[in-house]
Amino acid sequence: MRCQVRWSDMDAFGHVNNARFLTLFEEARTALILDGGEALSGLLDGCVVTRHEIDYLRPVTYRRDPIRVDCWVTDVRHASFGVGYEMFDHDGEPAARAVSRLSPISLPAGRPRRLLPKEREFLDAWRAES
Amino acid sequence: MRCQVRWSDMDAFGHVNNARFLTLFEEARTALILDGGEALSGLLDGCVVTRHEIDYLRPVTYRRDPIRVDCWVTDVRHASFGVGYEMFDHDGEPAARAVSRLSPISLPAGRPRRLLPKEREFLDAWRAES
Amino acid sequence: MRCQVRWSDMDAFGHVNNARFLTLFEEARTALILDGGEALSGLLDGCVVTRHEIDYLRPVTYRRDPIRVDCWVTDVRHASFGVGYEMFDHDGEPAARAVSRLSPISLPAGRPRRLLPKEREFLDAWRAES
Amino acid sequence: MRCQVRWSDMDAFGHVNNARFLTLFEEARTALILDGGEALSGLLDGCVVTRHEIDYLRPVTYRRDPIRVDCWVTDVRHASFGVGYEMFDHDGEPAARAVSRLSPISLPAGRPRRLLPKEREFLDAWRAES
Repeated sequence: MRCQVRWSDMDAFGHVNNARFLTLFEEARTALILDGGEALSGLLDGCVVTRHEIDYLRPVTYRRDPIRVDCWVTDVRHASFGVGYEMFDHDGEPAARAVSRLSPISLPAGRPRRLLPKEREFLDAWRAES
Repeated sequence: MRCQVRWSDMDAFGHVNNARFLTLFEEARTALILDGGEALSGLLDGCVVTRHEIDYLRPVTYRRDPIRVDCWVTDVRHASFGVGYEMFDHDGEPAARAVSRLSPISLPAGRPRRLLPKEREFLDAWRAES
Repeated sequence: MRCQVRWSDMDAFGHVNNARFLTLFEEARTALILDGGEALSGLLDGCVVTRHEIDYLRPVTYRRDPIRVDCWVTDVRHASFGVGYEMFDHDGEPAARAVSRLSPISLPAGRPRRLLPKEREFLDAWRAES
Repeated sequence: MRCQVRWSDMDAFGHVNNARFLTLFEEARTALILDGGEALSGLLDGCVVTRHEIDYLRPVTYRRDPIRVDCWVTDVRHASFGVGYEMFDHDGEPAARAVSRLSPISLPAGRPRRLLPKEREFLDAWRAES
């Protein structure tokens, strides 16, 4: 997907701040979960990140045109799934790669729960596509 | 160190946002580099994160009193060093653990550079203390 | 109150970003509403900003020691109240002055509501002190 | 212009945070100054906000499609200019209106400076269009 870097994403070094990369990946992930429509609506209500790994390859700076951020499902387990990401700078060079582990939770208690069959099915299909 | 969570660190789920944990670790790391005084002043001018790994153990919410964030040097190489972190929630339970890899850069070119002898010495001493 | 500026509050110009001043004022306001305890607990659940005016007097940069942010009630009406703020830089010089208008809302509908007698009483006492 | 709200722009009340509106206006303003090309390049290097007034009319929440943010020049003086903004929610209803005062500065000293003739000319033309 195309993702708009903001001028305010840059820190005092004049580059997009390292923590903000996770925000941009979160936006990509959220947009894709929204694409899941009714099947994934339960994840929009409650889903927590349990782990991130991220490698920074090149600095990114603000420009008016958006950058490319890819996002895909890496694996689906009983009560969690993995998401992979790659961000490219404005010249199309890889700027960061990351993987996240996410778990659905039931609100309001906030307890981890199993993925529902419709969620597994959608995520599995998404993984197969990737 | 003690670290103040902000109300605005919480996202729409009512918990401190996952990306914000990296910001809190960055604040802890920056404060400690500042403690290095003249020996580490070159790192304040230019130092990039090349990798983060973070495990989220418990949600953190806003309260008026600060939380505890520990931060230490894990290893020192020729052109990079590792930092470990642990964050505790307001009840003193572990909320997140992370490790980062950092590399000094020379500005304005932004090229990675070797650690200076005084930087290595300070970071090594810091690691030994941890 | 004392307020910790974060390194990440600075933008690419190397100063605390103008929008972040409102965040710092929000933290001061939230801390003070929390001080209201049970009397103001309804405001913590739902309260919206309807207006801000802010004058920037001096840039603020990151340092390890906190800065001073004053916050007080300017006036109390039927369904809103005003809050005034002054922020000082690390040398104690005025860095920004602002006023906000806030209105309590009832959740989940999000409709504006009148201030409760206990809220008016507390806010009035707070205004008198200022 | 069209502006993408981020999921992470929402705070614990589930609405775009009040301070974040200034960030969205900043992005609109920065994009438009970039449109000024060489004539306004000096403003990109150094330009400070001296005042904001903002009225919040309706809450904004995250959706995948962008919202509309208008931005124009209100007046041009010797050493400052005014910018007006209007933000619309996803249904096209006015969500916020604001005005800002901006002053160019000369770096690295950070001293306010007069607008250059080419800057005045461009900003005046922009104002006339609005």
